[in-house]
Amino acid sequence: MARSLRIAQVAPPFERVPPRAYGGTERIVHGLVNELDRRGHEVTTFASGDSAVPGRHIATVDEGLRLKGYAGDSLPYMQLTLHEVLARATEFDIIHSHLEWASLLLARVSPVPVVTTFHGRLDLPWADALFRDPPTGLVAISENQASTHPDVPWAAVVHNGLRLTETPFGTNRTEALCFVGRVVPEKGIVEAIDIALKAGRPLKIAAKAGPTTIERDYFENVFQPALEKAGSLVEYLGELDQGERDRLFAESYATLMPGSWPEPFGLVLIESLACGTPVIARRIGALPEILRDGIDGFFGDDETAMAFKVDRVGDLDRRAIRESVLERFSVERMTDRYEAVYGAQLEARHNARAGRPVVRVIGAEEASESGPSSARPDRQGALSGR
Amino acid sequence: MARSLRIAQVAPPFERVPPRAYGGTERIVHGLVNELDRRGHEVTTFASGDSAVPGRHIATVDEGLRLKGYAGDSLPYMQLTLHEVLARATEFDIIHSHLEWASLLLARVSPVPVVTTFHGRLDLPWADALFRDPPTGLVAISENQASTHPDVPWAAVVHNGLRLTETPFGTNRTEALCFVGRVVPEKGIVEAIDIALKAGRPLKIAAKAGPTTIERDYFENVFQPALEKAGSLVEYLGELDQGERDRLFAESYATLMPGSWPEPFGLVLIESLACGTPVIARRIGALPEILRDGIDGFFGDDETAMAFKVDRVGDLDRRAIRESVLERFSVERMTDRYEAVYGAQLEARHNARAGRPVVRVIGAEEASESGPSSARPDRQGALSGR
Repeated sequence: MARSLRIAQVAPPFERVPPRAYGGTERIVHGLVNELDRRGHEVTTFASGDSAVPGRHIATVDEGLRLKGYAGDSLPYMQLTLHEVLARATEFDIIHSHLEWASLLLARVSPVPVVTTFHGRLDLPWADALFRDPPTGLVAISENQASTHPDVPWAAVVHNGLRLTETPFGTNRTEALCFVGRVVPEKGIVEAIDIALKAGRPLKIAAKAGPTTIERDYFENVFQPALEKAGSLVEYLGELDQGERDRLFAESYATLMPGSWPEPFGLVLIESLACGTPVIARRIGALPEILRDGIDGFFGDDETAMAFKVDRVGDLDRRAIRESVLERFSVERMTDRYEAVYGAQLEARHNARAGRPVVRVIGAEEASESGPSSARPDRQGALSGR
Repeated sequence: MARSLRIAQVAPPFERVPPRAYGGTERIVHGLVNELDRRGHEVTTFASGDSAVPGRHIATVDEGLRLKGYAGDSLPYMQLTLHEVLARATEFDIIHSHLEWASLLLARVSPVPVVTTFHGRLDLPWADALFRDPPTGLVAISENQASTHPDVPWAAVVHNGLRLTETPFGTNRTEALCFVGRVVPEKGIVEAIDIALKAGRPLKIAAKAGPTTIERDYFENVFQPALEKAGSLVEYLGELDQGERDRLFAESYATLMPGSWPEPFGLVLIESLACGTPVIARRIGALPEILRDGIDGFFGDDETAMAFKVDRVGDLDRRAIRESVLERFSVERMTDRYEAVYGAQLEARHNARAGRPVVRVIGAEEASESGPSSARPDRQGALSGR
């Protein structure tokens, strides 16, 4: 993109940008801000005050709220972020919001075009009502996520990208499996323990334990008993930072993702693959768009099926796994796509002002390479215009 | 007010209007809608679909979310309410929002003037930041509530009003005390049991048990053990509807309000007084603006002090208590005040458009009658302009 834009990137106030440990949205925002800045755009990031970003930084709260232990209602601090953005909206050519449902209101009332990326699941009870008469500029992070709302005029599907070239590869490989995620039922942490026991391999667990009552209850009454029962084969490492997590992936025989919820993307998947470490997962959410079954790892429908696939991991080409994911899910590729979305939004606004009809923006670019086992091919085709 | 206005009343989506049982905000909205409609205004109420209001009704959700058991994040459904209002904003002369913190964003982006009533506590961690550069039209429901933010240019302090003329009086009076509220620590439900035991009188408890994990935990591990320990003197009635609650007040010797949090108003207080039933309370929040110490009941600083006052209740004039509160806290009086706020907001907008300076709206009208024991007289004076 030749023209330099004044771009606002709006992160939620819950984790710093970049996050110290867990925080997918904030990691993506960080990569995007850095790459846009490197390309010569004038980037302003709305994020917690302890964030570290190039360009201009507007602090929406002093520090990331979750690190402070805040587990209350999201509304007031999201409102506060909206206030800060709206107070300065006219300083930007385009606003890119990562505020989930609060983005929709921002898009409606902002005087400048808003691009909205949804990072979370969209199949929630309030979704249909909030998507009624949707604004333009809505971006999904996977075909699967977009497919939950086929009537929404998605501006694009933009797969997440990370700076993965520095990830470790081929060092200190062990026979152990690993699980990286959060101590919540939907991520399948207890199922991972079961798979390791069935496969007869050690398991190392790096997982964030949340502060809410429900999370603590699950930790104490479900996760800890399962851990104790498993004995010395399974080790809980607590929450790791990004470097430690990458080393864990690189040292592991395979990564387990037995979660059973519609994962909208799955950053753990591309992080593991970037280290050349195959992934054994349930066929859920966006994972079939990313993981090539039989090449990058294996899908299995329950603990028994996934344990069965563990020993077949030895046949996979770890170097080819790494090279493919570095090419398919780079920050550069993601940023190319977002620049195209920004450009299309600005052109649509320009045309609308000039009385020309609003053009629909771009479709999805990345082809799903999950082969014949890909879920809902018709819907994906319809969505991406292929 | 001579001129008929097109008024939007915006209720939160959590309880129906009027509420079936607990729901202070919704009770106030219901009274206000009815009285504005009776006075010839064209009223549109944004509220859950199971609401029953005169005039036009826009359903923001199918039914009140709490009745459905929703205990999740408030953000998406509040956003949805904002969307519904903004989509129709230009149909109104004035929008009166009861959405707490979400009102501030509505006020910033609405094309027509917004009056905002805060019904909850304002001394919360995000409050200073959200009140930075505040919009006009902000209304507090007590001097005490307003005093937590002396720099906010409050348009008015409007005490709540209820239709209290039909409340029962003088029938089936018993020797028992009562507690009406919610099963949460800040309402002092366990302290009420202690006071009853100390005073040697029966206690009847009508209280809503909430669905969240924290609320259930408190119910099971704190309230229920205290109830069992108290024995037959204390009876838990569950949640009562309005008629049953009024009968309970009317039959009670006195009502206990030993809560220890900054109660922004205290509807239970005026409901009890309307039945002629004195109240024994901690001197908290707005209660000193409503309860005349030694006339309507007594303040006490701990359980021992409140138990000590129980026997002095016999000296109070129950008929005078009832007559005073009916006069001071009527729906008509509240509606008079809100009509004045609407008028002032419209005039300010008109003047601003005509290039005239914006005038500050009205101050508080109701005098605190709590006498020399009134809390923070200086601050109240400063706020109300007295």
